[in-house]
Amino acid sequence: MQRFERLASWLGVEHAIILAPMAGGTSTPALVAAVSNAGGLGSMGAGYMTPQQIAETAAEIRSLTNRPFAVNLFAGGPDGTGSRDSTRMLELMAPHHSRLGLSPPTIPDDFLPSFEQQVAVILDTNVPIFSFTFGIPNASIIAQMKTRGIKLIGTATTAAEARALEAAGVDAIVAQGSEAGAHRGTFLASCEDSLVGTMALVPQIADAVALPVIASGGIMDGRGIVAAAALGASGVQMGTAFLVCPECGSAEAYKAAVRKARDDGTILTRAFSGRLARGISNSFATEMKAHERSLLPYPTQNNLTRAMRAAAAKKGDADRLSLWAGQAAALARELPAADLVEQLIRETAEMAGSIGR
Amino acid sequence: MQRFERLASWLGVEHAIILAPMAGGTSTPALVAAVSNAGGLGSMGAGYMTPQQIAETAAEIRSLTNRPFAVNLFAGGPDGTGSRDSTRMLELMAPHHSRLGLSPPTIPDDFLPSFEQQVAVILDTNVPIFSFTFGIPNASIIAQMKTRGIKLIGTATTAAEARALEAAGVDAIVAQGSEAGAHRGTFLASCEDSLVGTMALVPQIADAVALPVIASGGIMDGRGIVAAAALGASGVQMGTAFLVCPECGSAEAYKAAVRKARDDGTILTRAFSGRLARGISNSFATEMKAHERSLLPYPTQNNLTRAMRAAAAKKGDADRLSLWAGQAAALARELPAADLVEQLIRETAEMAGSIGR
Repeated sequence: MQRFERLASWLGVEHAIILAPMAGGTSTPALVAAVSNAGGLGSMGAGYMTPQQIAETAAEIRSLTNRPFAVNLFAGGPDGTGSRDSTRMLELMAPHHSRLGLSPPTIPDDFLPSFEQQVAVILDTNVPIFSFTFGIPNASIIAQMKTRGIKLIGTATTAAEARALEAAGVDAIVAQGSEAGAHRGTFLASCEDSLVGTMALVPQIADAVALPVIASGGIMDGRGIVAAAALGASGVQMGTAFLVCPECGSAEAYKAAVRKARDDGTILTRAFSGRLARGISNSFATEMKAHERSLLPYPTQNNLTRAMRAAAAKKGDADRLSLWAGQAAALARELPAADLVEQLIRETAEMAGSIGR
Repeated sequence: MQRFERLASWLGVEHAIILAPMAGGTSTPALVAAVSNAGGLGSMGAGYMTPQQIAETAAEIRSLTNRPFAVNLFAGGPDGTGSRDSTRMLELMAPHHSRLGLSPPTIPDDFLPSFEQQVAVILDTNVPIFSFTFGIPNASIIAQMKTRGIKLIGTATTAAEARALEAAGVDAIVAQGSEAGAHRGTFLASCEDSLVGTMALVPQIADAVALPVIASGGIMDGRGIVAAAALGASGVQMGTAFLVCPECGSAEAYKAAVRKARDDGTILTRAFSGRLARGISNSFATEMKAHERSLLPYPTQNNLTRAMRAAAAKKGDADRLSLWAGQAAALARELPAADLVEQLIRETAEMAGSIGR
């Protein structure tokens, strides 16, 4: 576990246990702060936030903790798939809107906050750690971050992506295994071709780069943390493990689905956002499997389904919500986030000791 | 590593490192015996063998080692997918036959050796360990095996399958993660729905059953073995790691493809056998992606492509061969099997010691 101690020390935290950034309201300031206060590193998923929202959220986190935390953005856009014609998709959405009592779906503005403006807030407010996924920020952004002493964590789903991140000057790399919940971070190949399991991915990325590797995907407890360390990781990033914590912003219907999760119960789908992501299977995701060619590109599909998702969350309708979760969601534990972090630390120490014996 | 020692002791070997059974000539008696002689457990993939061939092969292994070994069979048949009409598939195969100088493809007899007759040989020759995949042998077979003291190892790709194997009286369970090369062992759900990564699968199966769990999928070296132990496994099963050993029966073109493997270079395909399997991507597999509905059921598709595969192996044509391999094939090391087993044992001890520190 010596690599873990080195990464923790570099991050300025006690333990190299990183809360995965969960965009769209799942990671809350309370959750981020609870993880940081417990000795881990909280991360805010801010990819969908306006610059103003990022600034407010960072300030709120700072009011709750004086420990380091990370803010995560989407450093890349569409993954190249999706239909240019929205007619069929609007037809497919109509019954879901009607079921939820919403007015008929319309094509939303192709809104996604400007990455450059989001980055400006990170720089201006001196967020301690900037993590990102879906790509690599340009050289100028990376240089500015380094000038401010902001630490950079990129996301790779293949060894080739890890090498590209290292070449760009990133400081540490999240190796996102195929078990991971939510969006695939893939940016150099197709998402489908880059579904490499954590057990295979972490040692190959550890061999490919000299940077510290943070394992993610399927890690839920001390067993997974020690396994990641054995594979060559210097830390872990865990999201699904925190989904049923009271501080987590997941809707009640979402938490209920996580409580009933099974290992083979997740699905990879573009149905909610236009980008491939793993979540607990529900009727909207399975229905859209037959209509993959009609799905719109990211982020248009994400905007199109937003009204449905928001209404479904309010009504407790788990069949029309994105239920992002990894393949070991069944191991999630319903504890306050601080207690969960403490338990993870204890389990890790016990497991590491027993392996050596 | 105490669980590993218990499983090794029960298996009658020194180390709970099991050679994955690789059917179709990839695992040879020399490879099986080399692994067993080095202190691991060799396994012969005998699923495609006639009863006569199994008897001869078991005798050959016994002439090379007096240590325990396993014989592996397919305890299940078709997975329910595949076209009933072979017209299109014959058209698609024709150019490949012509390219290899073969006469036009024909529909082969739907030959698969009788499982009952294969099992009879295992019983008659008192093979020490019987492992199987694709299903569960019936209660009478399991009872007869137990009467003879033959140890039973089943294969699960989900916790539900592990529970079913435990209920049937099996002694140990291989947890096959989605990283694994070759055929998916899935038998209770669809293969696609059961692509659970090793990091997520092993702890969930370890929690689901009281039996020893043998981790497989993406495990290539001491890092993977210690990771598997941390996740709750009592042993590991490794196939891809042995693919470039000189004793391995893989064709030279197959070995050459493994030497050039990349983490994102494998594909899941039914193109060669009719059953979903993971191998290094080549032109036959990618071409057939567009014709999935025309593929014939297992084992008909397997019989149909046999002539092509045999000719391609002889001619060194890696594009018409099944190149079964897992997602960490790039970590395979070209060593005599005994040296590889020794190195795995040494790495495991070193890694286990360093994790505890």
